Amino acid sequence: MTETTDAALPTSSRPDGYARRTAAATEFADRHIGPRGAETEHMLAQLGYDSLDALVDAAVPASIRTDRPLDLPAARSEEQVLADLRAIAAKNTVMTQMIGLGYSDTFTPAVIRRNVLESPAWYTAYTPYQPEISQGRLEAMLNFQTMIGDLTALPIANASLLDEATAVAEAAMLMRRAVKGRPDGVVVLDAECLPQTIAVTLGRAEAIGLPVVVADLTDGLPAGLGGADGVVGVVLQQPGVSGVVRDLTAVIAHAKAAGALVTVAADLLSLTMLTPPGELGADVAVGSSQRFGVPLFYGGPHAAYMAVRTGLERMIPGRLVGVSIDADGAPAYRLALQTREQHIRREKATSNICTAQALLAIVASMYAIYHGPDGLRAIAERVHGRAAGLAAGLRAGGVTVEHDTFFDTVRTVVPGAARAVVAAAAERGINLWAPDDDHVQIACDEATTADHVVSVVAAFAAAGVAPDAAEMAGPQSFGLVAPVAVLPGWATRTSAYLTHPVFHAHRSETSMLRYLRRLSDKDLALDRTMIPLGSCTMKLNATAEMEPISWPEFASIHPYAPRDQAAGYTELIETLTAWLAEITGYAAISVQPNAGSQGEFAGLLAIRGYLQATAGPDDVERDVCLIPASAHGTNAASAALAGMRVVVVATAQDGSVELDDLRAKLAVHGPRVAAIMITYPSTHGVFEEHVGEACDLVHAAGGQVYIDGANLNALVGLARPGEFGGDVSHLNLHKTFCIPHGGGGPGVGPIGVGAHLVPYLPGDLSEVESAGTAGGRAPVSAAPFGSAGILPISWAYVAMMGGEGLRRATEVAILGANYIASRLTDHYPVLYTGPGGLVAHECILDLRAITKETGVTAEDVAKRLMDYGFHAPTLSFPVAGTLMVEPTESEDLAEVDRFIDAMIAIRGEIDAVGAGRWPLGESPLRGAPHTAESLTVDEWTKPYGRELAGFPLASLRGAKYWPPVRRIDNAHGDRHLICSCPPIESYQD
Amino acid sequence: MTETTDAALPTSSRPDGYARRTAAATEFADRHIGPRGAETEHMLAQLGYDSLDALVDAAVPASIRTDRPLDLPAARSEEQVLADLRAIAAKNTVMTQMIGLGYSDTFTPAVIRRNVLESPAWYTAYTPYQPEISQGRLEAMLNFQTMIGDLTALPIANASLLDEATAVAEAAMLMRRAVKGRPDGVVVLDAECLPQTIAVTLGRAEAIGLPVVVADLTDGLPAGLGGADGVVGVVLQQPGVSGVVRDLTAVIAHAKAAGALVTVAADLLSLTMLTPPGELGADVAVGSSQRFGVPLFYGGPHAAYMAVRTGLERMIPGRLVGVSIDADGAPAYRLALQTREQHIRREKATSNICTAQALLAIVASMYAIYHGPDGLRAIAERVHGRAAGLAAGLRAGGVTVEHDTFFDTVRTVVPGAARAVVAAAAERGINLWAPDDDHVQIACDEATTADHVVSVVAAFAAAGVAPDAAEMAGPQSFGLVAPVAVLPGWATRTSAYLTHPVFHAHRSETSMLRYLRRLSDKDLALDRTMIPLGSCTMKLNATAEMEPISWPEFASIHPYAPRDQAAGYTELIETLTAWLAEITGYAAISVQPNAGSQGEFAGLLAIRGYLQATAGPDDVERDVCLIPASAHGTNAASAALAGMRVVVVATAQDGSVELDDLRAKLAVHGPRVAAIMITYPSTHGVFEEHVGEACDLVHAAGGQVYIDGANLNALVGLARPGEFGGDVSHLNLHKTFCIPHGGGGPGVGPIGVGAHLVPYLPGDLSEVESAGTAGGRAPVSAAPFGSAGILPISWAYVAMMGGEGLRRATEVAILGANYIASRLTDHYPVLYTGPGGLVAHECILDLRAITKETGVTAEDVAKRLMDYGFHAPTLSFPVAGTLMVEPTESEDLAEVDRFIDAMIAIRGEIDAVGAGRWPLGESPLRGAPHTAESLTVDEWTKPYGRELAGFPLASLRGAKYWPPVRRIDNAHGDRHLICSCPPIESYQD
Repeated sequence: MTETTDAALPTSSRPDGYARRTAAATEFADRHIGPRGAETEHMLAQLGYDSLDALVDAAVPASIRTDRPLDLPAARSEEQVLADLRAIAAKNTVMTQMIGLGYSDTFTPAVIRRNVLESPAWYTAYTPYQPEISQGRLEAMLNFQTMIGDLTALPIANASLLDEATAVAEAAMLMRRAVKGRPDGVVVLDAECLPQTIAVTLGRAEAIGLPVVVADLTDGLPAGLGGADGVVGVVLQQPGVSGVVRDLTAVIAHAKAAGALVTVAADLLSLTMLTPPGELGADVAVGSSQRFGVPLFYGGPHAAYMAVRTGLERMIPGRLVGVSIDADGAPAYRLALQTREQHIRREKATSNICTAQALLAIVASMYAIYHGPDGLRAIAERVHGRAAGLAAGLRAGGVTVEHDTFFDTVRTVVPGAARAVVAAAAERGINLWAPDDDHVQIACDEATTADHVVSVVAAFAAAGVAPDAAEMAGPQSFGLVAPVAVLPGWATRTSAYLTHPVFHAHRSETSMLRYLRRLSDKDLALDRTMIPLGSCTMKLNATAEMEPISWPEFASIHPYAPRDQAAGYTELIETLTAWLAEITGYAAISVQPNAGSQGEFAGLLAIRGYLQATAGPDDVERDVCLIPASAHGTNAASAALAGMRVVVVATAQDGSVELDDLRAKLAVHGPRVAAIMITYPSTHGVFEEHVGEACDLVHAAGGQVYIDGANLNALVGLARPGEFGGDVSHLNLHKTFCIPHGGGGPGVGPIGVGAHLVPYLPGDLSEVESAGTAGGRAPVSAAPFGSAGILPISWAYVAMMGGEGLRRATEVAILGANYIASRLTDHYPVLYTGPGGLVAHECILDLRAITKETGVTAEDVAKRLMDYGFHAPTLSFPVAGTLMVEPTESEDLAEVDRFIDAMIAIRGEIDAVGAGRWPLGESPLRGAPHTAESLTVDEWTKPYGRELAGFPLASLRGAKYWPPVRRIDNAHGDRHLICSCPPIESYQD
Repeated sequence: MTETTDAALPTSSRPDGYARRTAAATEFADRHIGPRGAETEHMLAQLGYDSLDALVDAAVPASIRTDRPLDLPAARSEEQVLADLRAIAAKNTVMTQMIGLGYSDTFTPAVIRRNVLESPAWYTAYTPYQPEISQGRLEAMLNFQTMIGDLTALPIANASLLDEATAVAEAAMLMRRAVKGRPDGVVVLDAECLPQTIAVTLGRAEAIGLPVVVADLTDGLPAGLGGADGVVGVVLQQPGVSGVVRDLTAVIAHAKAAGALVTVAADLLSLTMLTPPGELGADVAVGSSQRFGVPLFYGGPHAAYMAVRTGLERMIPGRLVGVSIDADGAPAYRLALQTREQHIRREKATSNICTAQALLAIVASMYAIYHGPDGLRAIAERVHGRAAGLAAGLRAGGVTVEHDTFFDTVRTVVPGAARAVVAAAAERGINLWAPDDDHVQIACDEATTADHVVSVVAAFAAAGVAPDAAEMAGPQSFGLVAPVAVLPGWATRTSAYLTHPVFHAHRSETSMLRYLRRLSDKDLALDRTMIPLGSCTMKLNATAEMEPISWPEFASIHPYAPRDQAAGYTELIETLTAWLAEITGYAAISVQPNAGSQGEFAGLLAIRGYLQATAGPDDVERDVCLIPASAHGTNAASAALAGMRVVVVATAQDGSVELDDLRAKLAVHGPRVAAIMITYPSTHGVFEEHVGEACDLVHAAGGQVYIDGANLNALVGLARPGEFGGDVSHLNLHKTFCIPHGGGGPGVGPIGVGAHLVPYLPGDLSEVESAGTAGGRAPVSAAPFGSAGILPISWAYVAMMGGEGLRRATEVAILGANYIASRLTDHYPVLYTGPGGLVAHECILDLRAITKETGVTAEDVAKRLMDYGFHAPTLSFPVAGTLMVEPTESEDLAEVDRFIDAMIAIRGEIDAVGAGRWPLGESPLRGAPHTAESLTVDEWTKPYGRELAGFPLASLRGAKYWPPVRRIDNAHGDRHLICSCPPIESYQD
């Protein structure tokens, strides 16, 4: 299974030559897994084990081990899997997509596709929690925020949300929080909202007891909503799902007068032509940025946006990029207001969103930079012109067009003939949308051509009303040149947008290319270095896994295309979910949740639904969620959002659940206990032995067990959560199954459930009627299969690894973590160990005693590692003052040793501080990171040398990464909140 | 046609909104061309012209202007062209390719495809003539040389040649040169050579009067070759075209005894198993590296290789990467022995090859690094095992297999049934090769599966001899596991290869990815900066142009596949050649020449063929080629290789042909004049007015006019060489038509000819019988359509630009050069100007007076520009002591101004040296380039400051490129020639 890497041996010494590698089964696994055979042996020797099996037997408790090897198809080669995926892709039908419903076809500029979406420098980057080595993507995300702020005319935009539907749900919750003194206030949803928006919002609202009403708002707020002062928020959609553009002045004034806040869900492209939400008086704007160059992807991933007025900036969910200064006073970007985030606020969190859709937000922002305001406006005008021409053509042909004022979507009235028209269009290669038997809607977009317009008109012959299409083909008829449609004055935007120079400077492809390169060069991603982030699992995103996502047969499918056009996706999703079920030991998997946090929420909802359905008439409501003190804060946030009360269970020294305390808590809350959420192996990086017992205790009390799958990569092939006690788990496909982090998203968070929970998996639009009711199966994401477009990545990973490869990956991940722990423990104590004194797949280095002794903090070490060319390990999670290190299976011995060398060298620097060689404040540790500029100043005043600062190890010579800024002042940034591009002059000081 | 880039204006001020951009015609041109409308106006104002037309009218002589605008299809958008290319690609049929003939299917590892072949950091790089900013690709090419040296067991390998056929031709010429005292010596070609090798070699040999004989060498040298001492060289092919592996010991000994040199054309993969040429006693080895991960590409581009024994290193053609040291004594790579190159040796050159196939050589070297020696050997064994299994299966079925000893190709004897077997295999999706009616050959390769073997056996049912294929399907029958085939001892390699650590260190994809990134980060390519190389035309290689080349429908077609399987390629080539004919004004275009140098050669051969055919019985041979003194040296080298004598014509002050001297030379050589080669605009960067007159004079003397197309980018849309006097031109598709430079290749050098020369265009294999005869139409490249695989790039460029866009590109290129000349002339005199005091598309800055005054050389300026983040302009060509600057149309005003600012700042530094502020030897100019390491030393001893050295302009802060080495010592490198990877320790000093 391993191969030698020794210099080529004479043939005579390799009599087995012909047999070697004839089975390609392990070839990809050998590429994915870093250490070679000899390296593995070296690492095992360091630990005193003579085989991987022996190490794993010592580290992983027998109590959780599975006795059933993974039953997966044999590993296939990269070429075979690419061929297989081509065959699957060919089963999808690429149509002209004019369905609308919040998803529009768009052209990804090739320079952006190749140099962002397909560039490992962008897609292998981590979330910018270490801002000094993330300035490129932070700038890109700040551009996104600026773009959203400008287009919505609201001053503060976040760095993206998961999808438009959850963005509306977040806005509804935000409005409730922001309106003080109306805890039972109602949120009113526009009936013109997208159906998936309504379904998702109703589901989320129901879980937390937020009353939501759907109403026709065309003529203002409906009367009698429990008294007007009971309304806390109104959500309007503009243009509406029917395509209509309405004058919202009255209803907004009405809502404001009633003391409610107003959210407008707005189409981003339309905002180049239509009065923006901020100018309408909205407090919040949300929507999708998909049509800014991001492929349809059968529903996702796409970046949603949210912008708010001044005064709400501290209530906005998700990530916010801000501008601060570095140690030399230079402007520098960072994540702002992080204390708002759910992992810090735990059950007090107001949202459980962790991941953004960074990569997709970056694509959207680059699309705006590529086109500039004039270009975007021209695209919008062309789209609008197509729609106007289409409406004119249809009317001329005798078709009733319902709305006079619209942007891109034309709604027609064709009594009884809707299906026939849709079918006729499909025969011409075009998908339309029939919301019922009497209406057909046609959404125009960037890809709509004059030919498409002609074809659509021709399809209406099926309704018995269309004239000869050929007659209609002249440009005049369709507004392809002349301005046939002029929006009414009240609808028309007059204000400027995207005035910042960045939206004007890169109009040639050459300039765009260089801007993308320049930004990515500032960042450290997996394409340059190990990213040893404990709990975040930064492993290889193999190119063969990544290539298929840009194929048109995967990228260009509309999420609401007829299911028979997505037969390839259906096959892909069915096989992938079957594999994931086999890996986790669950009965079924839903891929709908488009982030781990959404998976947690969906899993808890499933538990809630099951408990409600099975409760006896006299049972008290089970609403207590037990969560160990060591858990990731998101667990508590998700529980709160699922309507549960969080009760904390103490954790033992090793991070495991304190069984005595669990018994105590069960004694107190027994009949009210809904669930326990356990992360396994624990966030402390150890395999605890008694997890099965904990599960049994909760089950005995009538509760359900939620195993957080964050650390599933330490279990695959060795144990199954569904076997050792879990009723439900979410998986983070970007951790265990190679979806790239993308600089902070996309994430994918499928859930697996036991058979009894299958009926309570997330629903889809067919459930929209029941979504707001108790027991209703609301969807948790806008698209039926969430971020379907990137599922080929995980599919390819499992297909190429096979069961044996997956298990070996787990084993080598455990080996790597233990090797590091063993090599470093004399320099930095390893905080927790489990059976055999071993850790699981990560280890926590405890800096607290060192800090106490020398003043050098874990943060100093993290920043100093940048000078050594490394991304820092996880800082102060789960324990303040520590570093959590996870090498993953993909790092080979050379890279792991390079990291260890750096850590040992830094320990030497710490000792020098301790010995008084330098005062801490004037040490290379506190001075870190050092930029090239700071080391080439003419006057050098530090007590340490420039060479020590910049080239502390000889191995850095010749291939040094230079941080673009010095240590960033976080407090300054939060005190002086700037969340859009500062004027260019501010960089020139 | 232009667009504004001002901040978004209120809609009300843009009444034409709906009409703008509705025609997408100019969209791509706007992306390709850097300057926006306002920038163009700014540049024109600097020059005192009020329109581009006025400038162009002033700069370009009316005498050459065309009065017929380009008649090309209207410009299409990027998306439309990609869709059109998908439709064209779909007309090619992707089959399993088992034809052999020197082209084997192979898997490009996805990590290499995405991060080399599809990475602008690699493909937009220039030839590494400026080695300090080219260390990444130089290391990659050195790896290639090491790989070739190891596999062939010969110590010196070059950095690639154009294809295997021309490599054999080069070897034949090398052998003649190396064997002293036998000017009329014969070269013997093995009848087992590839047919295209024989055809190309015979054609080249015929042109220079080198006698070549094709002979069966199975039993040694044939008797009576004009006496054995008349043989200067023998070329053997191993394995032979029939697949046979022969014991070459006797024939090589025979040749050596006769005083001849021996070249072995060897399959690179087979050398992991077979005794290598160096151990057989060969002096030279040549071949193709295509099957090391480079797609079939319908024939190219692929990198050929040549390796030689010690003693021949200074005779090897092409580029040679060597190791030297930099100013700090650190090891550094550079091109070695450049004085051997044809552009310096002119008509004394022994080869006219300029371009290498750098990008493809790099892919091949990375394939070896990815697989390592064990992996390559395993692939070879699997391929061999397939072939052995196939042979066994066929024999068991009653088929006669001709050779007992073979590597990957099985030759069968099927009297009269060959076509039927080939057809039966084609029905199963497999291409085989039938050299005649009685034989079928099957070549196995990396992509061959057990299923393919079974299908091939089944196809032999068409010969009436095969058993039931199902019976044969067991693994035993086909050697898929068991070692059924063992090569005889004499054939078997026993020596080690690829022992250098680089071939062992990057076995995981993660490590490979980082190695690729690390190397590319050392280099400056177009993705980071303007490359203002006069005469080299480094303009945008747009992503939309690049994407199609990796589609399987273009990448996986065998050059000798049946033509009906390449219908897409046929359409693509026919439309592209028609467009190029329209652009150049010629009657026909051949895309076969796979580099500009080969185009020159092919063009001169066409002239030669025409003149020979039309000569009267009493005419003297026309063998004089008139070449202006200012011409690129390759012109003279090509003329020499086409069997012509070079007569130099004087050039006037402005670089134009001195008409009086031309008249004088014509008077002397009149009836012997074959041609004049004129570069237009001249290498001096000016439009001369009297080119038409020069053409007329030559025509009047009975000669032909060759217009070198190197500067065609200054003419497209304004003038046609075929209209103003040319009979033939070659085009450099990488200059004018956006094929990327690839770090030093691929090049593509089609030729256009007038109607009278059409019969003399290069032939193909159908001409092989006549290739060696006078008047025969030998092919000039191995593949019928040369580097067909990258023609989609130029196709897309022309399709997206349209005639108007192409013309505007030319105009803006002229504008940019004149803007730079105007802005810089007060700082650096512009050497030559033409009409109106204007230059053409490039300008020469004359440093000679400055050097005389201050000692600062053009080289100092070139190196100092690296500190400013720029690639140097062309250094000392065509005039020593000058810099030739060409901005191209793709650079926008900001980048052009950034360059001008740098040049002006450098001029300030020069003045400071002149004023005695620093001694020259201690100045930042002579110290350039500066590495980060050199500026962060603890002790700084220079009289200038570190900040001045590293950050001479404020704009460098925040986005500084650091050269990886300091100025490289060229003389040291040539004195101590090291052309393979040095031991790793040597880097650690």
